[in-house]
Amino acid sequence: MINELFAFYKPIIENRIDELLPESDAPYNEVVKASRYSLKLGGKRIRPIIMMEFCRLFGGDYKKVLDFAIALEMIHTYSLIHDDLPCMDNDDFRRGKPSCHKAFSEDMALLAGDALLTEAFNVAANADLDANVKVKAVATLSQMSGFSGMLGGQVIDLSFIKNSPDLDALCDMYARKTGCLLRAAAGIGATVGGASESDIKNADVFAEKVGLAFQIIDDILDVTADPELLGKPVGSDDKNQKTTFVSLLGLEGAKEEAKKLTDEALLILDGFNGNTENMKAITKYLLYRNF
Amino acid sequence: MINELFAFYKPIIENRIDELLPESDAPYNEVVKASRYSLKLGGKRIRPIIMMEFCRLFGGDYKKVLDFAIALEMIHTYSLIHDDLPCMDNDDFRRGKPSCHKAFSEDMALLAGDALLTEAFNVAANADLDANVKVKAVATLSQMSGFSGMLGGQVIDLSFIKNSPDLDALCDMYARKTGCLLRAAAGIGATVGGASESDIKNADVFAEKVGLAFQIIDDILDVTADPELLGKPVGSDDKNQKTTFVSLLGLEGAKEEAKKLTDEALLILDGFNGNTENMKAITKYLLYRNF
Repeated sequence: MINELFAFYKPIIENRIDELLPESDAPYNEVVKASRYSLKLGGKRIRPIIMMEFCRLFGGDYKKVLDFAIALEMIHTYSLIHDDLPCMDNDDFRRGKPSCHKAFSEDMALLAGDALLTEAFNVAANADLDANVKVKAVATLSQMSGFSGMLGGQVIDLSFIKNSPDLDALCDMYARKTGCLLRAAAGIGATVGGASESDIKNADVFAEKVGLAFQIIDDILDVTADPELLGKPVGSDDKNQKTTFVSLLGLEGAKEEAKKLTDEALLILDGFNGNTENMKAITKYLLYRNF
Repeated sequence: MINELFAFYKPIIENRIDELLPESDAPYNEVVKASRYSLKLGGKRIRPIIMMEFCRLFGGDYKKVLDFAIALEMIHTYSLIHDDLPCMDNDDFRRGKPSCHKAFSEDMALLAGDALLTEAFNVAANADLDANVKVKAVATLSQMSGFSGMLGGQVIDLSFIKNSPDLDALCDMYARKTGCLLRAAAGIGATVGGASESDIKNADVFAEKVGLAFQIIDDILDVTADPELLGKPVGSDDKNQKTTFVSLLGLEGAKEEAKKLTDEALLILDGFNGNTENMKAITKYLLYRNF
């Protein structure tokens, strides 16, 4: 079921990206190429799909929110490009391919990230939606990406190099760094879909729980997983003496917390009136990983 | 007159920045500090003032467009922070003070730029304006800053290192790199002020001409100015073998072109019904520099 869902949305998303961000013979085409390179590097398009599914769940046509879904993916991609830069994580690879500054150059990667962030708001502003809804969605998108959202989370994460966090601080960091873009996906999808205020609030809490559970499971897998099956090296957190949910809660405590959050997230979906089969499949795909 | 105008707007702009971007005890406050550092580094606030004056000229209250003026200044500031980074111009100083990555760190400067760009759209989305006007203004702001606007201009400028431009290419680059944010200022100001479509179009052409004339005069001053009076070294274009309006048009040809554009810009102002005294003073301040 999840594979069918991915297969359904994939061409819709990829085609719309191609329409919104085409190459051309413009003299600035190099930065379009660099932006497209990272935007098309793969990935499951989890955030766009969550946004469109929440729209559908509450009775809206997923196409209504497609452009905001692309805008959100542009913001996610800009954050990855800038994260990989030498002055940040200095990662030469992203999804098994050269990161943007390796495939192009450092200045072009910096500008490609800036361009994707800017273009996200242009795509959002030009979406075919009622102006009031659009303004609300632009406000959500920018808030969830900005100082108190994803970007704030990155800043807090950097501060942990000097000061190891306690559990509250770790949760707060991940709630921002990972949770906020998921909350943007759920919130904008539900709003455009026509959800009630209380359903929008519940969709927000759902996204918060999924984001946190996902991070806890990441921390668990870094200890327990078979690197072959996981597709990336394990044990890096321990090697880097990183404070994780496992180091703070213990392996069993972390497993319990992940299970609790997953159950709560699924319970929230049960409370909605619409067909939640797809959203449940996405949630299980994200959270039912072997540990 | 121009000094009175600056003195009038300065506290209005600075106070609103302080309201919109206050320091706090939030765990991400370091990036707020870095953003504020660059945003408060001085500068004449030319773009915000042009936006508010165009609003006023067409009969609007300048306060209506204040938040968009701050948003524009945030975008201008982000571009300066990222421009100064080691992978771009590698400038240690900005307006005589350490550039953001020198005063803070490279990663914090990168994130401060990203944060200001993101926050610009949050401030815009939350401005106290009709949703339809707001959506149009967000579209203008993002278009003038993005691929085909300011950022495209930066990319084209980088390409000139390998390929010297002809006159058309040089004009196109500056029209984007410098002109587009001025066009955003004029266009959004005129729109919110309630200008007619033809006046909005003329305000746009005015901003285009001012931006180009400003750049030509910059190129002239790099050849003719007394470095003491100019406040920065001269002759750098020649030393860097940079193609400029002077190298393409000759000194006299460049002077003629600057004068022609300045006259045309002032003539456009004469065509507006409102009181254009302030806009004329700003234009003369920008363009009546000694050469």
